[in-house]
Amino acid sequence: MADMRKMIARRTARLRKELWKHRATMMLVTSPVDVAYLSGFTGDDSWLLAGSGRSCLVTDFRYQEQARRECPRVKLVVRKGSMVEALAKEVRRRGLKRLAFDPETVTVGLRRRLRTGLKGVRLVAAAQAIGSLRITKDEAEQDAIRGAVAVAEEAFRRFRRLVRIGTTEQRLAAELDHQMRLAGAEATAFPTIVAIDASASMPHARPGGRRLRPGSVLLVDFGAKVAGYVCDLTRVLVAGKIPPRVRRIYGIVHEAQAAAIAAVRPGATTVQVDAAARDVIKAAGYGDVFQHGTGHGIGREVHEAPALSPREPRGRLRPGMVVTIEPAIYLAGRFGIRIEDDVLVTPTGHEVLSGLEKRADRMVL
Amino acid sequence: MADMRKMIARRTARLRKELWKHRATMMLVTSPVDVAYLSGFTGDDSWLLAGSGRSCLVTDFRYQEQARRECPRVKLVVRKGSMVEALAKEVRRRGLKRLAFDPETVTVGLRRRLRTGLKGVRLVAAAQAIGSLRITKDEAEQDAIRGAVAVAEEAFRRFRRLVRIGTTEQRLAAELDHQMRLAGAEATAFPTIVAIDASASMPHARPGGRRLRPGSVLLVDFGAKVAGYVCDLTRVLVAGKIPPRVRRIYGIVHEAQAAAIAAVRPGATTVQVDAAARDVIKAAGYGDVFQHGTGHGIGREVHEAPALSPREPRGRLRPGMVVTIEPAIYLAGRFGIRIEDDVLVTPTGHEVLSGLEKRADRMVL
Repeated sequence: MADMRKMIARRTARLRKELWKHRATMMLVTSPVDVAYLSGFTGDDSWLLAGSGRSCLVTDFRYQEQARRECPRVKLVVRKGSMVEALAKEVRRRGLKRLAFDPETVTVGLRRRLRTGLKGVRLVAAAQAIGSLRITKDEAEQDAIRGAVAVAEEAFRRFRRLVRIGTTEQRLAAELDHQMRLAGAEATAFPTIVAIDASASMPHARPGGRRLRPGSVLLVDFGAKVAGYVCDLTRVLVAGKIPPRVRRIYGIVHEAQAAAIAAVRPGATTVQVDAAARDVIKAAGYGDVFQHGTGHGIGREVHEAPALSPREPRGRLRPGMVVTIEPAIYLAGRFGIRIEDDVLVTPTGHEVLSGLEKRADRMVL
Repeated sequence: MADMRKMIARRTARLRKELWKHRATMMLVTSPVDVAYLSGFTGDDSWLLAGSGRSCLVTDFRYQEQARRECPRVKLVVRKGSMVEALAKEVRRRGLKRLAFDPETVTVGLRRRLRTGLKGVRLVAAAQAIGSLRITKDEAEQDAIRGAVAVAEEAFRRFRRLVRIGTTEQRLAAELDHQMRLAGAEATAFPTIVAIDASASMPHARPGGRRLRPGSVLLVDFGAKVAGYVCDLTRVLVAGKIPPRVRRIYGIVHEAQAAAIAAVRPGATTVQVDAAARDVIKAAGYGDVFQHGTGHGIGREVHEAPALSPREPRGRLRPGMVVTIEPAIYLAGRFGIRIEDDVLVTPTGHEVLSGLEKRADRMVL
């Protein structure tokens, strides 16, 4: 296991370098996931000052004990008054003239309050300062994602054995979520999708009252959150004999996924990986019903950079990125097939982190 | 049941009036809960233009079908390019010169992109334009909160019968969450707190590996989300005979809660309601271990205005507000007692929406 203190020191050192670009020495971090990433503190309603010198967490009495336990090296400010007041005092104490912030998480209203409360301090928008760190996952993060995958997969294997004809999507989703919790998930990574037949032809179906019937296609898109990190997996199960059309479409999506996974390596562009899957689906004549990207980064959040899509800004894969590979074919009113795994970019190529069965014959319930 | 279309028309009319204060006719709504409040659409990644004239939802292909179903009266723009591009086109079509936005949900980065994409349109920060509507709940919203309470209470009653000596907090929390889903919750309202003995002395304890023992105090803070609305309840159970000290503290908190509930009526200040509970706890000598507010508003989110606290800005209760009443006493390292119900402010006083047992003798497992 990675040494968490060392990891956090390394992340903070990388942040320090990013801040140089903005001629700032410290950054105000307000988003809970970023605070956790840079300190280890997992509570809410707390801000972190990080960069040069000792990091400082501004929190309140509710989280005092937890913060001492989770981030013993961080200076703790337990506020009595407002967050901005407590922050201003610490910023003055450190003599900061410039303070970086993340324009994608700080609201217009909060910046106004910061400007009022931090008179004489220049607030500097440091876009992507933290985002550019979080896009690759260090050893501790990779361990955590592996942990989330292990929990989700154990739960899914148990869930498979519990699926019964006649059960509704809602009930099946509740059962899988419960299995994830029992297997050790602190929460689900996102609202689980359990979609039967025509529901599965919608990329973002919500579990409803539709019931599993013999021959039904059952699409399950799910993930566990463990130690703050998530996974994101999709499998399609078939209740009984696989209809020929379902088998054919499944084969195309499976082949498209294999092609995209094979394309994952350092230096490949996000558009190339997407095209690897898309070309297979297009060649089979279904290009117009695969309307979303082939994948996206995962980490503390379920949708992170990089996006693997023909539309999004192009980028190159780098070692440490973890992406989903999830091509799909949606046949409106009939069914949909999506197969999704989580893939780590390694220095020499890739490693598929998830290992649930996906050969068509093994997907029969 | 309330007519949802009528309700949404009424909310939009109220918004229109708020916008007059900012000399704007329409508002850009980007927060998913606000979009749902003003349109009925419950998906993600979509923006609403609302105020004068027909509201317009900017979404993408994933949500097209859902949006048609959920908000048939709203104009639908299914974007191909970016959100800002699609919005700009609609804003130009309507000839808007000013566009209101919520400074508490729009980030600094998003406002920059809006300014670039909406050249010639003045962006106007309309703080509290939507917040001032959502602070009171209309008939449809009250119905929805009642629905959430019913689901949470049914689940809790089942959960009580399943509690066994030796079970961990984590496992108990998973069990209650599962019962809420089976009873009809689309999700939990927030991460359920199940805290045993010393854990219960921390207001924001997270369920851990602590096990229930004979004589244990078991604090359970939970809520269901149903049709987009939440409830927030806390009960304390005791495993076996109630120790005298626990009974005494329970009695004080129970009395404090009754006093605060009795103080809920239109025109009462938030500080008065808080003081009603706090005075009882202070008089018993525990004022210093009740460090948080007596309650907060609930609705689509679990923490909404108004805050019932000595510190927060003072306000007066108005009919339609729904608040939690949750005084507590925390005895560090020993146990904590918190009792929480959800209370509607009525034109003549109040109505307690939740009805779970709370007499000490009925809290024995």
